Amino acid sequence: MTQTQLDLAVIPGDGIGPEVTAEALKVLHAALAGTGLEVKETRYSLGAEHWLATGETLGEETLADIRGRDAILFGAVGAAPGDARIPSGILEREVLLKLRFSLDHCVNLRPSRLYAGVPSPLANPGEIDFVVVREGTEGPYTGNGGALRVGTPHEIATEVSVNTAFGVERVVRDAFRRAAGRRNRLTLVHKHNVLVNAGHLWRRTVEAVAAEFPGVEHDYLHVDAATIFLVTDPSRFDVIVTDNLFGDILTDLAGAVTGGIGLAASGNINLDGTAPSMFEPVHGSAPDIAGQQKADPTAAILSAALLLEHIGQPEAAARVQAAVKADVEARTPGESRTTAAVGDAIASRL
Amino acid sequence: MTQTQLDLAVIPGDGIGPEVTAEALKVLHAALAGTGLEVKETRYSLGAEHWLATGETLGEETLADIRGRDAILFGAVGAAPGDARIPSGILEREVLLKLRFSLDHCVNLRPSRLYAGVPSPLANPGEIDFVVVREGTEGPYTGNGGALRVGTPHEIATEVSVNTAFGVERVVRDAFRRAAGRRNRLTLVHKHNVLVNAGHLWRRTVEAVAAEFPGVEHDYLHVDAATIFLVTDPSRFDVIVTDNLFGDILTDLAGAVTGGIGLAASGNINLDGTAPSMFEPVHGSAPDIAGQQKADPTAAILSAALLLEHIGQPEAAARVQAAVKADVEARTPGESRTTAAVGDAIASRL
Ligand SMILES: CC(C)[C@H](C(=O)O)[C@@H](O)C(=O)O
Ligand SMILES: CC(C)[C@H](C(=O)O)[C@@H](O)C(=O)O
Repeated sequence: MTQTQLDLAVIPGDGIGPEVTAEALKVLHAALAGTGLEVKETRYSLGAEHWLATGETLGEETLADIRGRDAILFGAVGAAPGDARIPSGILEREVLLKLRFSLDHCVNLRPSRLYAGVPSPLANPGEIDFVVVREGTEGPYTGNGGALRVGTPHEIATEVSVNTAFGVERVVRDAFRRAAGRRNRLTLVHKHNVLVNAGHLWRRTVEAVAAEFPGVEHDYLHVDAATIFLVTDPSRFDVIVTDNLFGDILTDLAGAVTGGIGLAASGNINLDGTAPSMFEPVHGSAPDIAGQQKADPTAAILSAALLLEHIGQPEAAARVQAAVKADVEARTPGESRTTAAVGDAIASRL
Repeated sequence: MTQTQLDLAVIPGDGIGPEVTAEALKVLHAALAGTGLEVKETRYSLGAEHWLATGETLGEETLADIRGRDAILFGAVGAAPGDARIPSGILEREVLLKLRFSLDHCVNLRPSRLYAGVPSPLANPGEIDFVVVREGTEGPYTGNGGALRVGTPHEIATEVSVNTAFGVERVVRDAFRRAAGRRNRLTLVHKHNVLVNAGHLWRRTVEAVAAEFPGVEHDYLHVDAATIFLVTDPSRFDVIVTDNLFGDILTDLAGAVTGGIGLAASGNINLDGTAPSMFEPVHGSAPDIAGQQKADPTAAILSAALLLEHIGQPEAAARVQAAVKADVEARTPGESRTTAAVGDAIASRL
C-alpha cells in the first residue's frame, strides 16, 4: 500500500456504540504509529439521536460522502426497545442495512475463536477457530416482501428471499479463497431439502467453484444440523459459507459458544473495491448499559483489526489480534474494568 | 373418549425408522393394556424402498386412506445422502412435508426437556423444560419459490415465505393455551427488524391473542438472540411460538442442548380435527446406523406419548413419560443397549 493517509468514516451510533468505537480508534491509532499511515477521521452522527433531531435515518448526501472514504468503522445503532418515539427496527434497516446494501457489502465476514481461559457455555468446547462468510446483500434481507389486507382476518404477509448466481458465486469464491489460506475446509450451510430453488443454486455454485480449489475439502450441512454441531463439535468448522439469514443466526450462536458476542468482530466487505468496507462488532447498541463504561470494547477492537487487514496492514492487524489475545487470556472471571481501561490495556500491549 | 378402537396409521419409513417405530408401538400397546382401547394398525410402506419400487412418493389414494385414520405414527424418511438413485430431498418433501401440509398439521409441537443424568453439551444447563410451538403449514416451507435462467450466470432463485392471519392466529392461540397450562410464559421468536411484513403480523397477532390470556406473560426475541439464550439460559423458556423455519432451527438446537435429538419427540397437530395428527421423532432416518439395532427409540416412544395425550389418554401418556424418565435417568454413560432392549425396558416399567 503506497497510501499515506487512511480516510476513515467513523459512525459511532447509539447506546454503547460511541464508547466501544472510541476504544477501537484508540487501538487503531496505536497500531498504526510508526507505519507512516496517518488516519483522517470523519464522524457521522447517525442513529437514534440524529433521527430524533432530523427525522432522517441516512440521507443520500451523507451516504455519498461516506462512499468516498477508504473504510468505515461502525459502532452500533438501535433505539432502546421501549422507546416509542422511534419506529421499531427503522435504524437497523435504514442505517445499518442501507449501508450494507448501498455499499455492496456482499461478504459479511465473521470470525469465531475461543480464547484460552474464556468461559464458554459448552462443557467441552475444544478448539474453536472458524470464520463465517455470510452473504450480505441478498437472501431474505432484500426487503422484497409485502402485505395485503393488513389488520384483517384475511391478512397475508410475504417475505421473498432473492438469490442470484452473481451474488452467490462471488461470496462462495471468497469463502474458498479464505479456506485455502486456513485449514482447507469449507462447509456450505443451507436448507436445500426445503428451500429447493435457493438451496440448489448455492449447492451448484459450491460444486462449480470447488473445482478452482482442489486443495479445499467441502461438505454440506442443513442449517438445523449446523446448529447442533456448533454446540456438540464446533472444532469441525474452518470456513462456513451461508446465506444472509442463516449467517445471522449461526454467528450469534457462534458468538455465544465462544464466550459471548462481546468478543465477536465482523467486516462487511465490498469485494471489488467500488465502495468502502465497514467494520463493526456483532453486538448491538445495548441501551441498558449505555454511557456507563460497562461495555466490553473487545469486539469493536477486533473489528478494527479486520479493518487493518483489509486495508493492507496485515502486520498491524496481527499485532492488534495478539494484544487482544494476551489481554483476553489474562482476564480473571468477575473482574470489571471500564470500557476505556480495556482499550488502554490492549493499546499498551502493542 | 368413548371410542373403543384407535385406528392407527403406521408409517415406519426409511433407515432407523422401522426399528424405532417398532419400539414405539410396543410401548403404545403396553400403555393401553387395560384401558379398553384396542389398537388397529394399518401400515403404509412409504419412503425410499417404495419410491424405488414404484416411482411414487405419496399417492393420492394412499393419502386419502391415511386421512381416514385416527392418528399417525411416523418413523423417518430419507435416503442415504450418497444414494444417487433418489433425488435429494424428494422423500422429505413429498412424503413428510406433503403429509404435514395435506393434513393441515398447523402446529408442530416440540417439547424439550433435560432429564437428570443426561449429559448436556452445556456446562451449566440448569433446568430445561420448554415446548416449541412451531407453525407447520406456512412460512418459507410453502414451496412458493422459483428460478429463472437456471445454470447460467444470470440465474435468479427465490423462496417466498407465506404467512396469513388465519395461519398465524391459530398457532399463537394454541401456544398461549399451552403456556396457560404450564408456567404462564410465552416467547415469540421471529426477526421482525428485517422480515418486517411477516414479523409484524406475528407480533400483532401475539399482542391481540395475549388479551385472551391475561395470566400469561409474553416477550419477544429475535431468532439470533434466541439461539444465544438456548445455550446461555435455556431455563428462561416455557413456551416458544415461532414460524416454520425458525422452529426447525430452534428445535434441533434445543434437542442438542438437552442431550441429543435421540430424545426429541414431536407432534404434528391438526387443531380442528379435520384430519389425523401425526407423531414422529425429530431425528431423521440415520441411514448410517440403520438395521443395526443401534438407534435410540426414546424419541419415537415419547412421540407415542404425545399421541396418547392427543387422543384423550392423558393417564397412559403420563405413564409412558414417567417410564421414559425412569429409564433415561437410570442410563449410565457409555452403556449400549439394542433398540429393542430400550423399548423392552421402558415397556416393562409401565
Ligand atoms: C440489526 C440486524 C439488522 C442485524 C442483522 O440481522 O444482520 C444484526 O443482527 C447483525 O447480525 O448484524
Ligand atoms: C426433513 C425436513 C424437511 C424436516 C423439516 O425441515 O421440517 C426436519 O428437519 C424436521 O425438523 O422435521
